Amino acid sequence: MKLASLRNGRRDGALHVVDRDLTRALPCQAFPTLQAALDDWDEAAIMLQRLADELRDGRREGTLPFRAEDCLAPLPRAYQWADGSAYVNHVALVRQARGAEMPESFWYDPLMYQGGSDRFLGPCDPIPLKDPDWGCDFEAEVAVVTGDVPMGATPAEATEAIRLIMLVNDVSLRNLIPGELAKGFGFFQSKPASAFSPVAVTPDELGAAWAGAKLALPLLSHLNGTLFGRPDAGQDMIFDFGQLIAHATKTRDLAAGSIIGSGTVSNRDAEGGPGRKVSEGGRGYACIAEQRMVETIRNGAPATPFLKPGDRVRIEMLDGAGKSIFGAIDQVVTDSASA
Amino acid sequence: MKLASLRNGRRDGALHVVDRDLTRALPCQAFPTLQAALDDWDEAAIMLQRLADELRDGRREGTLPFRAEDCLAPLPRAYQWADGSAYVNHVALVRQARGAEMPESFWYDPLMYQGGSDRFLGPCDPIPLKDPDWGCDFEAEVAVVTGDVPMGATPAEATEAIRLIMLVNDVSLRNLIPGELAKGFGFFQSKPASAFSPVAVTPDELGAAWAGAKLALPLLSHLNGTLFGRPDAGQDMIFDFGQLIAHATKTRDLAAGSIIGSGTVSNRDAEGGPGRKVSEGGRGYACIAEQRMVETIRNGAPATPFLKPGDRVRIEMLDGAGKSIFGAIDQVVTDSASA
Repeated sequence: MKLASLRNGRRDGALHVVDRDLTRALPCQAFPTLQAALDDWDEAAIMLQRLADELRDGRREGTLPFRAEDCLAPLPRAYQWADGSAYVNHVALVRQARGAEMPESFWYDPLMYQGGSDRFLGPCDPIPLKDPDWGCDFEAEVAVVTGDVPMGATPAEATEAIRLIMLVNDVSLRNLIPGELAKGFGFFQSKPASAFSPVAVTPDELGAAWAGAKLALPLLSHLNGTLFGRPDAGQDMIFDFGQLIAHATKTRDLAAGSIIGSGTVSNRDAEGGPGRKVSEGGRGYACIAEQRMVETIRNGAPATPFLKPGDRVRIEMLDGAGKSIFGAIDQVVTDSASA
Repeated sequence: MKLASLRNGRRDGALHVVDRDLTRALPCQAFPTLQAALDDWDEAAIMLQRLADELRDGRREGTLPFRAEDCLAPLPRAYQWADGSAYVNHVALVRQARGAEMPESFWYDPLMYQGGSDRFLGPCDPIPLKDPDWGCDFEAEVAVVTGDVPMGATPAEATEAIRLIMLVNDVSLRNLIPGELAKGFGFFQSKPASAFSPVAVTPDELGAAWAGAKLALPLLSHLNGTLFGRPDAGQDMIFDFGQLIAHATKTRDLAAGSIIGSGTVSNRDAEGGPGRKVSEGGRGYACIAEQRMVETIRNGAPATPFLKPGDRVRIEMLDGAGKSIFGAIDQVVTDSASA
């Protein structure tokens, strides 16, 4: 099934079941918010599935047209947002561009950072940017929402705890990152609020594309209407979601509603290199920084600018029939200094 | 007023108003959880204050005895836990002990990390420890809970948004920290669930001790019944809570219920040095690591061991009359591998 949190003037929105084609929505009275459903998932899943079945069969009154613009993030605020870097190719490129060596351990010990989760952006919310010099970038990723996962869970146990899957725009302020990481405590100011896809879906909605705790479909990013990247999220993912969740549980329990991200999706090309831009026939990139790194490696300097007010980012994933699975993240950068 | 979340079998517990002496509690029916009250604070504060007045005057039926053991953390789970390092003395000592230089910028640009907040420990909950080789330590700190704070708030505006104050045991796994920080993305596995004091209090409860967005009282830590530290939380705090919150809002809004920590409280001695143990007449330390650093600086090696199963940590703050303000964090380390 597909779930969305629609605007209702409250912080958590109203939980709705959405049909497969993303055209109609049905509110869930018994579990008014997605967090409430996750807190009591065994019971909630049965009820939500019943609503989904009735919605599919046209057996329910009270459905309403579904529009992405009415959506908050599926979890408008969450108790945890931990983002991995499972596409180690992306990390290797970052290091290569700045002439630094990547530790060998990155291939077997996942990188993960604790992100802010008190207030996410909805899929069509503007990206507020106070200072274009901060180097605003998008990062297209896949993320999962977990149930309760006990400390020391195995990857197999962790995979069983995956409740929902969604897309993320992990907005990043590139020019704030070097100074912040040099301080040694990880990201904070350089990672403002992330945005999520209109709907979150259960694993069974993905069919064969969900295999081995990875989502094997191209993740499409458009910048100002032009395709910027189409890397396959199932390829070059060195740590699957079960491994990422297990990493997060090494020293503590994870509570229901924890969101675990894949990190920026990134593919190597057939020769093991960093690939090419879409305009050169390649799969392109799921963030501007990666294209800039490839430009730096090739030409000594980046050419593609970071985001500025007015720029539009669209992130989406289509199924085998060309239909949008999660709806689109579709955001415009706005000058928040003048707001 | 003083607020607590009492165990009721649910994840968020039941919000109660507690009297100043920490003897009686009264449930709040209109705002069943502390997060619900923070979401709608203007209205909630009026109602909670009325309950507090009635509790003080003995005008209410239905009060129950208050016991710290019945408490969850005031916010048993939160949408944000961001911990500063405002006592730069602590950071300078860490660096000195390992022969590293501390950047000058640490004196004017706050260090802050994003912590996990999906499941906190209650004040009397055991500290689960799977492997004593991880180097388990306590860190005694002060923390505040904020209302909504807009992006770019000034320290003065941020100070106005402080709703509640409480104590924290920021449990740390010291031997996991160097490897994790070397990866560049900050703490994750090295910071398991933190514990909080039985009650959170409004600033007006603190009288003159709350001044300049700092809490000017000694923070007492006991290890296995022996006083380990009594540094004054109002001294050597280089960044007050207004500055810490403002730092957190540089690139994003903070939502109501965000918890901002002070970092480990740490005082210099009169000569500007790292002070002495309590047993040597000093103020001691608010974590084991700091005492070990001083031992290393003085004797070339640490002597005090980290926590092992069975060890007991108590963190408390007394008012001028010797009464406990927040109740005590009182935890025993347990072997979670055998659980």
